Formats: sequence, structure tokens, C-alpha cells
Amino acid sequence: MKHIYTGKTKDVYQLEEGNYLLKFKDDVTGEDGVFDPGSNQVGLTIEGAGRAGLSLTKYFFEKLNEKGIATHYVDANIKEATMTVKPAKVFGKGLEVICRFRAVGSFLRRYKSYAKEGQPLNAFVEVTLKDDELQDPPITKDALDMLGILSADEYEILKKLTQDICRIIKDDLASKGIELYDIKLEFGRSEKDDHIMLIDEISGGNMRAFKDGKYIEPLELEKLILS
Amino acid sequence: MKHIYTGKTKDVYQLEEGNYLLKFKDDVTGEDGVFDPGSNQVGLTIEGAGRAGLSLTKYFFEKLNEKGIATHYVDANIKEATMTVKPAKVFGKGLEVICRFRAVGSFLRRYKSYAKEGQPLNAFVEVTLKDDELQDPPITKDALDMLGILSADEYEILKKLTQDICRIIKDDLASKGIELYDIKLEFGRSEKDDHIMLIDEISGGNMRAFKDGKYIEPLELEKLILS
Repeated sequence: MKHIYTGKTKDVYQLEEGNYLLKFKDDVTGEDGVFDPGSNQVGLTIEGAGRAGLSLTKYFFEKLNEKGIATHYVDANIKEATMTVKPAKVFGKGLEVICRFRAVGSFLRRYKSYAKEGQPLNAFVEVTLKDDELQDPPITKDALDMLGILSADEYEILKKLTQDICRIIKDDLASKGIELYDIKLEFGRSEKDDHIMLIDEISGGNMRAFKDGKYIEPLELEKLILS
Repeated sequence: MKHIYTGKTKDVYQLEEGNYLLKFKDDVTGEDGVFDPGSNQVGLTIEGAGRAGLSLTKYFFEKLNEKGIATHYVDANIKEATMTVKPAKVFGKGLEVICRFRAVGSFLRRYKSYAKEGQPLNAFVEVTLKDDELQDPPITKDALDMLGILSADEYEILKKLTQDICRIIKDDLASKGIELYDIKLEFGRSEKDDHIMLIDEISGGNMRAFKDGKYIEPLELEKLILS
């Protein structure tokens, strides 16, 4: 097992049979000690955050695999906080795909002259470049195509896949009395045949969820969903 | 004639027959005394800038009207620096539509990990909100549709119209040995029947153009094109 990458919240190892092992850390993104899923820097370390994030990721990826949605997930070891995944190539230097059900966060900051806080958005999808220095600039379908990152056809596949996945997650949360406001996913191309698949994780740190009008912290959210 | 609006580079008056009169001023956008077509503030006043901008606007709008492209242009009086236009409603609080033939300016700043300076872009269209406070944030087709600013169908009309207009302008400049890098247009809906038409102006202040590899200042550009 060879260590190949140290990420903000995960370390990556290459396994002998061609798969990869992701080791979930207890570091979460945020600023000044306050958790923020939209942030690009590690803001704090929470004991047990890695295992909790992995537990939720395992829960959702297994649910998605069962429904025939392509993901990189193979299996998970909660005790070790590790997940085995299939090899994937990211688009360009990496994209983040955001699905929004209510107007909050960067969407509201950008479009505040047109959108009200908390206004319903019907599984609205937007894509940003993973670029810490530029704080993940948004990018259009046409720009992704022109820059050779994602073709126009692939964009439509990605958008549909994102909406399908996020509606499954939203419905699951709703059945537990929790409302999903927005969620951030990552996708890649299968190293084998280039088909588009969901990669990375689906944890509390990737979404904003509310219960009885109150925002739920990631660790609390993971407990609520898995209880 | 009733004064109804004071803009950064133009004043607007309502005429008795239902049309409007735009009075071009000698103020141009920029910062610290340096002209910048991408800027949102008036940076300097150049004697004759208003008349020069209007002359070029007249030249291009008459060319476009001849080709059957819908614009708000009726006629112009260069001596008075005024232009008569048909009434139009802007989209939302106003959009800017940018057409790019080479990667410079904000496109390059945003996508510098993917694009090289000056890289050809094939009439790439992007839309930004007119919002000085937020420095004209870019907005996607889906977001324009979801926020009720422009429907998905109208977006496609706007994009096609922009490419048609900008290719006409690019070809005209090319015939004079000038290369158009990018250009910013504004559109509106006709007050009469809601059809989409080109509004505002087409002057040196709306475009970046180069001759023999050197950037040409707006006033110089206007002289070169009209000579």
C-alpha cells in the first residue's frame, strides 16, 4: 500500500489490485474554528469526525450502488476509517458540482438582488472549478466545453446524475424530518471505460441540512440520519 | 423632453413620441485615470469621447439594422452627441453579454489554470449581472431561467444573436487590419412585442481590439475604424 496524496480531509493510498484506499481524517473545513462546508481550508479537528463522515458516506454510496447509480465505492472499514474505491480521473483539475434546493451560501451572496434567503430552488445545479486561490470560481457549461474540461453532452449527463442523486439524498433526509438545503458532490471518469461516476464522499461536511428551522452541524447530522 | 436617468457614460431623456434620447458624455469607465472597458466606475473624462463613441455606435447599429438584426437604434445626431432609440425593457436589473474571441480580462483571471493568455475562443458567450457592488457576477443559463430573468429559450436566442452580431463586428475590424479580442453588449425586450433586441452602444469602450499585437485605446480605435 503506497501513500500517494495528502488531502485536506483525507489521505489517499494506492492498493495492489488497482483500487485506492481513502483514509478519512478528523479534520473538517471551516474558518476560525467554525465549521463551514463551503470553505476551502481546514478550520478545526473534531474527534470522531472521520469515522462519522465515513459512516454516512458508506450509507449513501451503498444506497446509490443498489439503485444502479455509478459510484467509485467498493467497501468501507469504519473502525479503520478507510474506504476502498475504484480508480477515477477527475475532470481537469477537479470540479465541484453543487445541487441547491434552497437559496443560501454563495448562491445567495452572488444573486442577492434576485433571490430571497431560503427561497426554494428546484434541484438547481451549478459547477465550480476546484481552485483554492480563486475560491472555486463558478463555470458555465459552454466554458467547460470550450476549455476541454467536460463536453456539452457530458455536462448534461453530469447534471441529470447530480439531480437524481441529490433527490435520493433529499428524500432520505426528509423521511427523518430533515430538510436538505444544498449539497456538494464530486464526479470523475472511470479509469476503465470513461463513464461518469460519483467519487469522493457524501458526509455532513458536504451538505447544509436543517431540522425544525435550525441548521444541523455535520456530526449531529450524521447521528440523526444513521440513528 | 424629460430627463429620466443619469448613467455613468450617458444621460437618458424621454421623447414625446414614445422614443428615448441618449446623450453621450465624455466620461469613460476606468480606474486611477486609466481607461478600462471592464471597469464599473467612471475613471476619466476625455474631450470628444462621447461624440467618438456615438459615431462608432451609429456606424455599427446602421450596419446591423441593414442586415435585419433587431436593435433599439433609430437615428443619431453626432454634433449634439445624441441618439434616438426605441423603448426597451432590460432583463431583470440588467445583464451584460460578453463575446470572446481570445482569452484576456476577467475570463483569463477566472480560468487561468486552464486557459493561456490570448488563446483563441470561438465566439464564446458569457453573461454577467449588472451589479456594481458584486462586480458583475457571472451567471449561467440555468440560473437566469430559475431566477426568472431570462427563459432557457430566450437564452439561446440571446446567445445566437450575440455571436451573429459580434462576428459582423469582428469581420469589419479585420477588414481594417484590427483584431477583436472581446466585446460587451447589452440587450433588452422591445416594449411593443417583447422581441429581444440589441440596446445601449457599440463603441471603443465596449471592446478590446489589437493592431499589430498592440492594444488600441477607444478613441484611437474609433478613428481607425471610421477612417
